[in-house]
Amino acid sequence: MYHSLNKNKFKHTLKLNKNTDTIINIGDITIGYNTKTIIGGPCTIKDFDSLDLIASKVKSSGGTILRGGAFKPRTSPHDFQGLGVDGYKIINAVSKKHGLLCVSEVTSITNLDDACKYLDILQIGTRNMQNFELLKAIGKTKKPVLLKRGFSSTLEEWLLSAEYILNKGNPNVILCERGIRTFETFTRNTLDLTIVPILKNLSHLPVFVDPSHGVGLSEYVMPMSIASIACGADGLIIETDIDPKTTISDGRQTINTNTFKEICNSIL
Amino acid sequence: MYHSLNKNKFKHTLKLNKNTDTIINIGDITIGYNTKTIIGGPCTIKDFDSLDLIASKVKSSGGTILRGGAFKPRTSPHDFQGLGVDGYKIINAVSKKHGLLCVSEVTSITNLDDACKYLDILQIGTRNMQNFELLKAIGKTKKPVLLKRGFSSTLEEWLLSAEYILNKGNPNVILCERGIRTFETFTRNTLDLTIVPILKNLSHLPVFVDPSHGVGLSEYVMPMSIASIACGADGLIIETDIDPKTTISDGRQTINTNTFKEICNSIL
Amino acid sequence: MYHSLNKNKFKHTLKLNKNTDTIINIGDITIGYNTKTIIGGPCTIKDFDSLDLIASKVKSSGGTILRGGAFKPRTSPHDFQGLGVDGYKIINAVSKKHGLLCVSEVTSITNLDDACKYLDILQIGTRNMQNFELLKAIGKTKKPVLLKRGFSSTLEEWLLSAEYILNKGNPNVILCERGIRTFETFTRNTLDLTIVPILKNLSHLPVFVDPSHGVGLSEYVMPMSIASIACGADGLIIETDIDPKTTISDGRQTINTNTFKEICNSIL
Amino acid sequence: MYHSLNKNKFKHTLKLNKNTDTIINIGDITIGYNTKTIIGGPCTIKDFDSLDLIASKVKSSGGTILRGGAFKPRTSPHDFQGLGVDGYKIINAVSKKHGLLCVSEVTSITNLDDACKYLDILQIGTRNMQNFELLKAIGKTKKPVLLKRGFSSTLEEWLLSAEYILNKGNPNVILCERGIRTFETFTRNTLDLTIVPILKNLSHLPVFVDPSHGVGLSEYVMPMSIASIACGADGLIIETDIDPKTTISDGRQTINTNTFKEICNSIL
Repeated sequence: MYHSLNKNKFKHTLKLNKNTDTIINIGDITIGYNTKTIIGGPCTIKDFDSLDLIASKVKSSGGTILRGGAFKPRTSPHDFQGLGVDGYKIINAVSKKHGLLCVSEVTSITNLDDACKYLDILQIGTRNMQNFELLKAIGKTKKPVLLKRGFSSTLEEWLLSAEYILNKGNPNVILCERGIRTFETFTRNTLDLTIVPILKNLSHLPVFVDPSHGVGLSEYVMPMSIASIACGADGLIIETDIDPKTTISDGRQTINTNTFKEICNSIL
Repeated sequence: MYHSLNKNKFKHTLKLNKNTDTIINIGDITIGYNTKTIIGGPCTIKDFDSLDLIASKVKSSGGTILRGGAFKPRTSPHDFQGLGVDGYKIINAVSKKHGLLCVSEVTSITNLDDACKYLDILQIGTRNMQNFELLKAIGKTKKPVLLKRGFSSTLEEWLLSAEYILNKGNPNVILCERGIRTFETFTRNTLDLTIVPILKNLSHLPVFVDPSHGVGLSEYVMPMSIASIACGADGLIIETDIDPKTTISDGRQTINTNTFKEICNSIL
Repeated sequence: MYHSLNKNKFKHTLKLNKNTDTIINIGDITIGYNTKTIIGGPCTIKDFDSLDLIASKVKSSGGTILRGGAFKPRTSPHDFQGLGVDGYKIINAVSKKHGLLCVSEVTSITNLDDACKYLDILQIGTRNMQNFELLKAIGKTKKPVLLKRGFSSTLEEWLLSAEYILNKGNPNVILCERGIRTFETFTRNTLDLTIVPILKNLSHLPVFVDPSHGVGLSEYVMPMSIASIACGADGLIIETDIDPKTTISDGRQTINTNTFKEICNSIL
Repeated sequence: MYHSLNKNKFKHTLKLNKNTDTIINIGDITIGYNTKTIIGGPCTIKDFDSLDLIASKVKSSGGTILRGGAFKPRTSPHDFQGLGVDGYKIINAVSKKHGLLCVSEVTSITNLDDACKYLDILQIGTRNMQNFELLKAIGKTKKPVLLKRGFSSTLEEWLLSAEYILNKGNPNVILCERGIRTFETFTRNTLDLTIVPILKNLSHLPVFVDPSHGVGLSEYVMPMSIASIACGADGLIIETDIDPKTTISDGRQTINTNTFKEICNSIL
């Protein structure tokens, strides 16, 4: 079953190394085997009030975790780089108010202490999947980590990045497929759903899917959410906003909160 | 909805050009909107008896169309090239015996008359998706065509290849996603399932998925079959054999007929 | 040296199978080891007069072979499909008038007799590199063939397509790199120049480069022509026209005949 | 000339923003317009003595900068991670002894002070090209930076990463093409040489090529070095060792110091 994988490079993340599925408990929430978790929220945090409104919709739809970007790794230095630690504080306050957990991206060791203080789950974004110094540092905490696949990373490279975190003592890793870069330009990325059953077969870690980045076009987020769950995903992370037209970034792939509710209804 | 598509290049295959979904009727079988069609059979036709045995399993599982290769486009000239027209005759006889339809690949204008005589559905394989002379010739027949996506073809190029067939007067085209070539080597191809809801949105043509070539590993054919249907596919074409270990080609991706039955049970 | 190549699939095209470099003689022209051949001409043949004008420039610059498309494999059926056999006749007449050889694409077995009658070299285009029935048919002639690399074909697949031709008895194959499809969209394709020294090392066949399609932007055709020769290419095929703005197709990558002359001067 | 580039995202790196080519002076060495710089050394620093031996060969061949990895971003956490700061100290001492400059990779803000203290040029490796926090921090120093292209980064993304550094006040950026990830597996990466004349045309920054990683097979490093210079590269960074069979990492792509001398002789 590991056919082309170099098993010698692994000590932690394969079923060879640990026979039972990893289950992550945070507060009342259980992530992993036999549960379906839905994360919702905007690409970028704008301010308390707008996030508060979105959070109430995420909660009432059945979502259990709030997402929102504070440190934004933008391609151009001249684009808005996010609210930084203030963003962490806002998502912390809003999620608590609504009885949700929160997740946000951490982009540098420099901000790791703040991230651990304000967030329930740390997100490693696609561009930092092989930022090994950051992975090692996170491995020394016990914080749950949502580890996105590098946009051009192979299955083996991705699992080895998880291996970096587990190797330092943190077992709480969630793998998250978010689309890969191919020749096709109609979609922003090519969502590689086959990797979901493969990961569930090879590894004991929970597997999520991000259909928003995977597709990049809001009208296809719903069918791909359903397909993700159909082939075995343990959860979804979805960009949603009250009015995607006014969202700060990634508006083209953001669904409105009504569609978010429909997706939750189909899955939960 | 057509955002990055050059609509001016199209006259036939888009919903802009025809508002109602194409439905293809062959004998008792209906392909298209609101039906789910499952095609099963071996990669390559070996002989009457082995195909007969497989066909009985396809039929009893709920499959309605038998597949089997007669002209095989093999990468090396020194590999077995298939039984040729004799293969067409065998699949014709076997499918009739079991009350199934049959589909097989046609690789050259030279064999088109025989293909039309013996087959219910012509398959254009991934390597011939831009063999425009063949597409034009098939466009002049009325035979239903299963048009596989070129393994590195964009959405627009694929729809334009269908356009070649419709433009000559043959409206009976089924689009079939079969995986694209990317940097990932764990799987044989990367199955691009997002293209299913996109095609259903843009075009009126039926859309099938070939999870066998899309994945290349038999253990993942079942979850990806289910996911394909979950995101809107009208049908599946699956490589199956009594004992995949003894199959002539593509054994690694061929499921046995018991798994084929399980898939049919989950979907039909 | 063949490290990841499956040598068992080969009988003809590797140095393992034939120790001396293949040299192709056509009239006074020698293609292969220690010669540099430059082919020039428009993407598509418009008419006698315009081709005549271009041919005189190709000849006076030092080019020895005239190119020009007659059967054009266009992505859309609604685009101009070329002059067909009339195009073959025009390029035959024009090239003879100027003491040049001629090459043009053949896209179907149906036109192979005409192609052999009017052309000195048959071109197999990127979309037909795995049109194995066409390759076999060409293998039965002795006509020199310029075999372009499929735009997503691996080294092994490409060499095996050449193997199809040699296997039927035609040893006169020229391999032509023309760029591959990758994620990069600034250029039309990604020119894979490393394949030039690799092919020269593994195979005895002559290797050409098509920088026009490889890059897709006329301003970079000259440096990439020079680099192609620098890493060992035996020849170049370049799209050139008197006024690229008025050329029928691929104008963006076509250089004017003055630049063509500059390239010839740098190389010959 | 910027045809598909989003010029609005740029303020520093394009010729639009600065008309004259950037020239970087370090000690006696000039990098940029009209000079050819050759960097040589092992992938990973083993110890003083072995690096000392290599450095003497680099120097006597005409190389002016010594390379060697101290912090190694290895795919697996169980592979050797490099000597760390001790490696910086060794390459500092060895390069000074031989009158060479030195370059080594910096992988984290944590080690930036040491890197600035011991190195003449900082290297940003392919996996950190979009580690924007690191880029910003380096932008606040004046240290020359060799910025490798991300293995799946577009031209625009790469130039924007350079933009991050210049935007913070550090103008001393060298761009270094090192191959991109494609479907082709015969070579480790696909060296995209066309990007060299494109970058020279669009940007004022010096452009280097790393044929060792670009190809991954030592026997093709020499022809691709020559081709790189032929299409306009300002310099090369090449992995070389006395005996590549005993080198710690990347031995398959490392040339011996005799071949290194041959390359220098052809170019300088």
